[in-house]
Amino acid sequence: MNKRGPNSFTIDEQNLCITQGRIWMPSHPKADKEGVVTGHQLFIKGKKIEAILPDNEVQSELKSTYTNIKLEGALITPGLIDCHTHLVFAGNRAHEWQRRLAGESYEEIVKSGGGIQSTVNATIEASEQMLYELSLPRLEALVKEGVTTLEIKSGYGLCYDSEFKILSVIKTIKENHKLDISPTFLGAHAVPKAYTTDPEGYLDTVINKMLPDFWHKGLMEAVDIFCETIAFSVEDATRLFKAARELGIPIKAHAEQLSHLGTSELVANFKGLSVDHIEYLQKSDVIAMQHSGTVATLLPLAFYFLKETQKPPIDLLRKYAIPMAISTDFNPGTAPLASLRLAMNMAAVEFGLTVDEILLGVTTHAAKALGRDNTHGKIAPGFMANLAIWEVDKPVEIFYELGTNPLIYRVFEGDITN
Amino acid sequence: MNKRGPNSFTIDEQNLCITQGRIWMPSHPKADKEGVVTGHQLFIKGKKIEAILPDNEVQSELKSTYTNIKLEGALITPGLIDCHTHLVFAGNRAHEWQRRLAGESYEEIVKSGGGIQSTVNATIEASEQMLYELSLPRLEALVKEGVTTLEIKSGYGLCYDSEFKILSVIKTIKENHKLDISPTFLGAHAVPKAYTTDPEGYLDTVINKMLPDFWHKGLMEAVDIFCETIAFSVEDATRLFKAARELGIPIKAHAEQLSHLGTSELVANFKGLSVDHIEYLQKSDVIAMQHSGTVATLLPLAFYFLKETQKPPIDLLRKYAIPMAISTDFNPGTAPLASLRLAMNMAAVEFGLTVDEILLGVTTHAAKALGRDNTHGKIAPGFMANLAIWEVDKPVEIFYELGTNPLIYRVFEGDITN
Ligand SMILES: [Zn+2]
Ligand SMILES: [Zn+2]
Repeated sequence: MNKRGPNSFTIDEQNLCITQGRIWMPSHPKADKEGVVTGHQLFIKGKKIEAILPDNEVQSELKSTYTNIKLEGALITPGLIDCHTHLVFAGNRAHEWQRRLAGESYEEIVKSGGGIQSTVNATIEASEQMLYELSLPRLEALVKEGVTTLEIKSGYGLCYDSEFKILSVIKTIKENHKLDISPTFLGAHAVPKAYTTDPEGYLDTVINKMLPDFWHKGLMEAVDIFCETIAFSVEDATRLFKAARELGIPIKAHAEQLSHLGTSELVANFKGLSVDHIEYLQKSDVIAMQHSGTVATLLPLAFYFLKETQKPPIDLLRKYAIPMAISTDFNPGTAPLASLRLAMNMAAVEFGLTVDEILLGVTTHAAKALGRDNTHGKIAPGFMANLAIWEVDKPVEIFYELGTNPLIYRVFEGDITN
Repeated sequence: MNKRGPNSFTIDEQNLCITQGRIWMPSHPKADKEGVVTGHQLFIKGKKIEAILPDNEVQSELKSTYTNIKLEGALITPGLIDCHTHLVFAGNRAHEWQRRLAGESYEEIVKSGGGIQSTVNATIEASEQMLYELSLPRLEALVKEGVTTLEIKSGYGLCYDSEFKILSVIKTIKENHKLDISPTFLGAHAVPKAYTTDPEGYLDTVINKMLPDFWHKGLMEAVDIFCETIAFSVEDATRLFKAARELGIPIKAHAEQLSHLGTSELVANFKGLSVDHIEYLQKSDVIAMQHSGTVATLLPLAFYFLKETQKPPIDLLRKYAIPMAISTDFNPGTAPLASLRLAMNMAAVEFGLTVDEILLGVTTHAAKALGRDNTHGKIAPGFMANLAIWEVDKPVEIFYELGTNPLIYRVFEGDITN
């Protein structure tokens, strides 16, 4: 069977006109109940979307200056955005999982050198080149599913040099790959072993040394912190966020994953970008988030892999119209699953999200979680021409059948490829 | 980074000697606690494994008549076996899922023409060629994860001509693909609409017409039935199995998925190959299975997708040493997930199986579920040279990190490819 589009391209990269596609634009006045607009043509000029025009309003003179791509009914969505990953690391925690499956407790495993500390040790020992090469197949796994924008966090260095190394690897990825990369500094991921008796001392280093340096070096777009009884407290987060505010750095947090600390309310009070995990989120948090526009980022793969039972309060988030993003949380210990489509599928099965919520969660709302909602995650004039093009009839088919993959083309900043 | 092996092959297909691999042979006397044997060479002659010899026992004269493949430490397992799929069908049930996510009940969906009947209608309307082409990406999805043997069931025809068409498509796949295909006749998948008021009449056709004809035409290796309150009864199954026994046809069943009917005990009494799903399996079934050697086939993807809560009685199966197989159950309605590695991951996360159990479940025990335990699913002299070769240190890594894929080579009946 033939694809719904050309097999190869010979393209003037500057100007594209995509015709006969079905365009997912749920807020467009002509969208059907699936959010799909037909009978329109998508014009791309340089890196940006220039216009979406009905077929009958396109003058042939205009069109002749664009390279035409005929899609024969394929579905066009914004390129997918994975807004929460820990993709740069060395080492392997599969053997720890094996021990847990054989009945050992997490405590026993941590005691014998396992847990996040084992990833930190391996990452500290790895060269920049090695970390870069280890990242590539993970990137590719996401890209082949239609991801065009990707957040990557540091956080497996836990000291100045190693955090710097990880952020430098992320910068190298950014320079060498068509993907839009959004780097986040997560020095406050865990308390490193050297500071076990002086966690405040470690946070001092994060706040006074790493944060300003990495920010001024242009290595980060936001700062993140892991707040949990086993990690940092709300007081710690307050200190970090105050320092970030001074410097003008956007903030976010790993919040309410295993218990309710009220981190989300704090993040909202600081007008943070997103709170992530949020299984134990409460009404007080949600009300604060409604005022601040903070995104609720759901991480169903971690929920699955950790066999969690407390689900994020979806109905509460709906009631207060909090934008929900969905992300992989790809990481070596608690979500070793480099598939945003699997995360979308699990958002439906595990959390009961609707198809519209899920698609917004990996496009418009994920863009908002990155502070990029004016340029990314939407098909609209002036937005980046980052697109995913699918061999499907309905949007739900993007994440219904897994294993097979309906993605047929991708557009990275105006550049179309198979 | 380089792969642990050659980038390309120029091969005399008749004789291979694979060296420097680490071979997963859990019952080998020199296996380590992961089931891995090192310092051995694997000799393949024609389509079969000839010998596994320690490095120091290999004479160089012998070796010169084999093409040498150096693996530099890659892990060799038997080719994976997916022993339960419904892979040949037309149509798409994604929109039904969308309706369920939006709050509609399964009953409402069935009433408006959804459910299995919609797949049956689409499959009846599809040409043989179309069904074949629709199957290919699904096959490819499984093959790229290391599957070398695949069971495929009929069951979306529900009348002589359409069941014949599906079995013919499976035969075409078998003839055109390197995969080992094991076809199963599942005419008793559901009661077709035309027989709503006369289910016994439909079963008469299955038993008296389809079963002997398809068997004598060589289109099937086993017969299956879906026993459930909403499908066929234990009495129906008894009739079918008696007829199968007369003809010498191996039997199996979809059993105890949503309730306990005792189908599994019946299957065991008929010395059946496997009982599949078995969430509601009971001790009486297990005792019968122990005597008959019937395999317990677990289908964690269907369990996940249907949000089931009753888990198969793993401890009971362990106690009675029942061989457990793991399979995708790939189908358009309740397990649209063409990934055996995801099924393995879920067997761990959802059912708590150990790494050894999971690997046996997609090799040795899956072969037994297909009645092929003397030729498939094991690395041993005389067994088929079907192998999967992985870029991993430990076997658990085969299914720990998903999205990325550690498979580097496959061997289909002695023929090695990337
Ligand atoms: Zn995270
Ligand atoms: Zn089935």
